[in-house]
Amino acid sequence: MVEKGSEWVVMATGRSPTNIAVIKYWGKRDENLILPINDSISLTLDPLHLSATTTAAVSPSFTRDRMWLNGKEISLSGERYQKCLREIRRRANEVSDAEKGIVIKKEDWERLHVHISSYNNFPTAAGLASSAAGFACLVFTLAKLMNLKDDLGQISSIARQGSGSACRSLYGGFVKWAMGNNTDGSDSLAIQLAEETHWTDLVIIIAVVSSKQKETSSTSGMRESVQTSALIKHRAETVVPARTLKMEEAITNRDFASFAKLTCADSNQFHAVCLDTSPPIFYMNDTSHRIINLVEKWNISEGTPQVAYTFDAGPNAVLVSPNRKTAALLLQRLLFHFPPNKDINLTSFVVGDKTILQDAGVTSMKDIETLEPPPEIKDKVPYQKFMGDVSYFICTRVGSGPKVLTDETLALLDPITGLPK
Amino acid sequence: MVEKGSEWVVMATGRSPTNIAVIKYWGKRDENLILPINDSISLTLDPLHLSATTTAAVSPSFTRDRMWLNGKEISLSGERYQKCLREIRRRANEVSDAEKGIVIKKEDWERLHVHISSYNNFPTAAGLASSAAGFACLVFTLAKLMNLKDDLGQISSIARQGSGSACRSLYGGFVKWAMGNNTDGSDSLAIQLAEETHWTDLVIIIAVVSSKQKETSSTSGMRESVQTSALIKHRAETVVPARTLKMEEAITNRDFASFAKLTCADSNQFHAVCLDTSPPIFYMNDTSHRIINLVEKWNISEGTPQVAYTFDAGPNAVLVSPNRKTAALLLQRLLFHFPPNKDINLTSFVVGDKTILQDAGVTSMKDIETLEPPPEIKDKVPYQKFMGDVSYFICTRVGSGPKVLTDETLALLDPITGLPK
Repeated sequence: MVEKGSEWVVMATGRSPTNIAVIKYWGKRDENLILPINDSISLTLDPLHLSATTTAAVSPSFTRDRMWLNGKEISLSGERYQKCLREIRRRANEVSDAEKGIVIKKEDWERLHVHISSYNNFPTAAGLASSAAGFACLVFTLAKLMNLKDDLGQISSIARQGSGSACRSLYGGFVKWAMGNNTDGSDSLAIQLAEETHWTDLVIIIAVVSSKQKETSSTSGMRESVQTSALIKHRAETVVPARTLKMEEAITNRDFASFAKLTCADSNQFHAVCLDTSPPIFYMNDTSHRIINLVEKWNISEGTPQVAYTFDAGPNAVLVSPNRKTAALLLQRLLFHFPPNKDINLTSFVVGDKTILQDAGVTSMKDIETLEPPPEIKDKVPYQKFMGDVSYFICTRVGSGPKVLTDETLALLDPITGLPK
Repeated sequence: MVEKGSEWVVMATGRSPTNIAVIKYWGKRDENLILPINDSISLTLDPLHLSATTTAAVSPSFTRDRMWLNGKEISLSGERYQKCLREIRRRANEVSDAEKGIVIKKEDWERLHVHISSYNNFPTAAGLASSAAGFACLVFTLAKLMNLKDDLGQISSIARQGSGSACRSLYGGFVKWAMGNNTDGSDSLAIQLAEETHWTDLVIIIAVVSSKQKETSSTSGMRESVQTSALIKHRAETVVPARTLKMEEAITNRDFASFAKLTCADSNQFHAVCLDTSPPIFYMNDTSHRIINLVEKWNISEGTPQVAYTFDAGPNAVLVSPNRKTAALLLQRLLFHFPPNKDINLTSFVVGDKTILQDAGVTSMKDIETLEPPPEIKDKVPYQKFMGDVSYFICTRVGSGPKVLTDETLALLDPITGLPK
C-alpha cells in the first residue's frame, strides 16, 4: 500500500479526437445520466487537426483533485466532472511500477487525489465540440492511469455522463451512439460502425463562421426542445430510427450520394427542431445559410451530391467531400464567396491539411482574388462575395480514436511536481 | 340581349384587404384545385393601409380579356386567372341598368370580354401577401360585375383557386380557411370567426426587412416541403388541428397570452418545416431572428407575452400588440435596434397609422437617436444596433373585408373607353 507523503508521481497522457454527428443527438430522456432520445452517428475527425490532449497524474502528495484546461485552473466541482471521476475510481484496479517500486492497490484510489491537465489543439470557443474531445480524453486518460479493465464501450458510457457526444469520441472512424433501453444507462454507449481505414477518400472542410451572437448552450437548448417542440418526438421516434439504418448502410457501402442526402437532411431537421422550440433557437446565421445554398446549387447543377454539409449547435459548417478532387473544387467555391479580410494571411486562413489548398491551385492571397466564379453561377451576375464572414477554414479527414501518448515529453504535467509544465 | 359593337361600358370597383396568417397554410393536397393539407387562421389587415383596388369592366366593344396591374398590362393566360374567370362566368347572372338601357343576359357573359385594372396601395415586391389581396379583389369585383348570387364563402372558394390564402381576404376580422374534405374543393373555403369589431385593441406593426436574397416562391416552396419534409405530415395531421381549436378559443375570449403563444409557435413551426425541406428553404434572415430575439427577451422579462410575431414566406416581421400602449413600447424597441439609414425621413420610415409614433414619443429623427435602451437589456452592454436592416415600418390594425366602391372617381378604368385612366 502506498504511503501518504511519498515523493512519487504516476502519470498517463492520452489524446482524443473530436467528432461531428451526421445523425444528430438532440434531446435527453434522462438529464442526470445523459441518456438520449435517439441514436446518433458521427465521424471521428483526425486528431492531428482537432483533438484534446490530457495528462492525468496521481501522487500521495496531492491534497485534492485539481484540473487545468488550456493552462488555466478550472473547478472540478461540477456534477459532470464528479460523476466521471466517481465512475472511474469505482472501477479502478491495482497499478504497479516495479522500476519505481510503486504499488497502488485497488482500494487506494478512493483516497488518492489526481491532477489533470488538458489542452485543445483548436480554439475552444469556436464551437467545434471541444467538450466531446475533452471529456472523452479525460475519461480515457484516467481509465489508463487507474488501469480500468472495461472495454471501450463501457468507457464510452462513462464519458457520456460528462458530455453526451463525448462517448462517440472513444472510437475512430464511423461511430454510433446507441441510445440504449436500460434505465441505468448501461447500454447507452458508443459502437464503432467502421474504422477510419474503411472509407479513406472522404475530405472534411470546416468553415469557422464569424459570429457575434451569444449562442444557447446545447444542454439548455435540447432541454427546451424536449419540453416545447411539437416535432421532436416524431423526429426521435419515427424519423431518426429509419434514417440511422440507412446511414449505417450508406457507410458500409461507401455510398456517398446516400450519405450526403441523409447528412444534410438530418442537420436541417435538427435545426428545424431548434426553430420549433419555444423560444426558438437559431444556431445557423445568414453565412451558414449562404454556405448551404452554395452547396445545394452546386449539387443540383451536377445532378448528384458533390458535398454534404452539417451544422452543430453553432454557425460553423462542416463540409464532407467524397474525394480530394471534389474537396479542391469545394475549397475554390468557398474561397471565392468568402474571401478573407485584408489583414489575414493565407497560412492562418486555411489550416489543417494544407495540401488541399495546393490541389485547389491557391498558393497566395492573390490567387483567392483571381478565382473564377464557379460554372453553376457563372450566368447569374452579380455574384455576391462576403469578405470576412468566414474566420478561417480547417481541412481535415476521418481519423483515429483515442491513443496513449508514451512520449513523456508530450505530458502536460511535470513528472516531479505533478503541476502544469 | 346586348348588341356587339354597342358603345356602353359597365363597371364595378372593389377594394380587398390583405391578411396575415396566425395559423399557417403550408402544403397542398391538390395542386390543381389549391386544396390545403390543414386549416389556417388569419387576421384581415386594415385596407386603409394594405389593400388591392380593382375595377372590372365589360363592354361589347372589348375584343379580349385584358388586365393591368399597377398600371402595367399583364397576361391573363395563366391557369390561375383562367380558372377564376371561368368559375365566375359560369355563375354569372343577368345584369340590367335601366337608366342606360342595358341588359346583359346570363348567357351573354360567356362571349363578352372584360377589362380589369388592379392596384396595390403597398409595394408588391415587399412580400406582403399582395397575391392574396389581388386575387380576393379580382374575384370579389368580377362577382359584383357579373351579379353572382353566391355567398361570400362560395366566392372565397373561387378566390382560393387564384391564390390559396386569397380566400381568407374575403372577410374582415378573424378568418378561418377550412381545409374541407370534398375532392372537388367545394367545402375548402373561408369562414369568418369574428368581425373586426370583436377585438379592436390589437395593434399591428409590420417591419419590412431589407433583403437582397432571392426567395423561393411559396408555390414551389410548399410543393417541395410536401414532397421532402419528414415533419410536415405530422404538423398538418396532429399539431395544427389541436392548435386551430385553441386559436379559435383564444380569439373568442380575446385571450392575448394564448393568442401570442400560438401565433409565435406556429410561425416558428412553419419555418421549421421549410428548413426540414430538401433543399432547405430559408425565409427568415439574421434581421428576422434579431426581431424574434428582441420580442422573446421582452416577453420573458415581463413574464407574460407583450407581443406576438409571425413571418410569412419572407423576412418581414408582422408584430401584434394587445393594445396601443404596448404597441408604442414595441415601436420604441424596434426603432432603438433598427434605426433608419441617414438619408431616410421619418414620414417614409414609419407609415400607416402614425399616431402610434406619437404615442411612442417619436416625432423626429433625433428622437430615434436619443431613445433609451429598453430595461430588459439595460444591463447588457454593448447594445447592438442594426441601422438600415429594416427598410420601413407599417403601423396598422385588424380591418374590414372587401367593399364595393361606389364613388366612380375611384374607378381605375375610364367609363367611356374601358382602358386604364
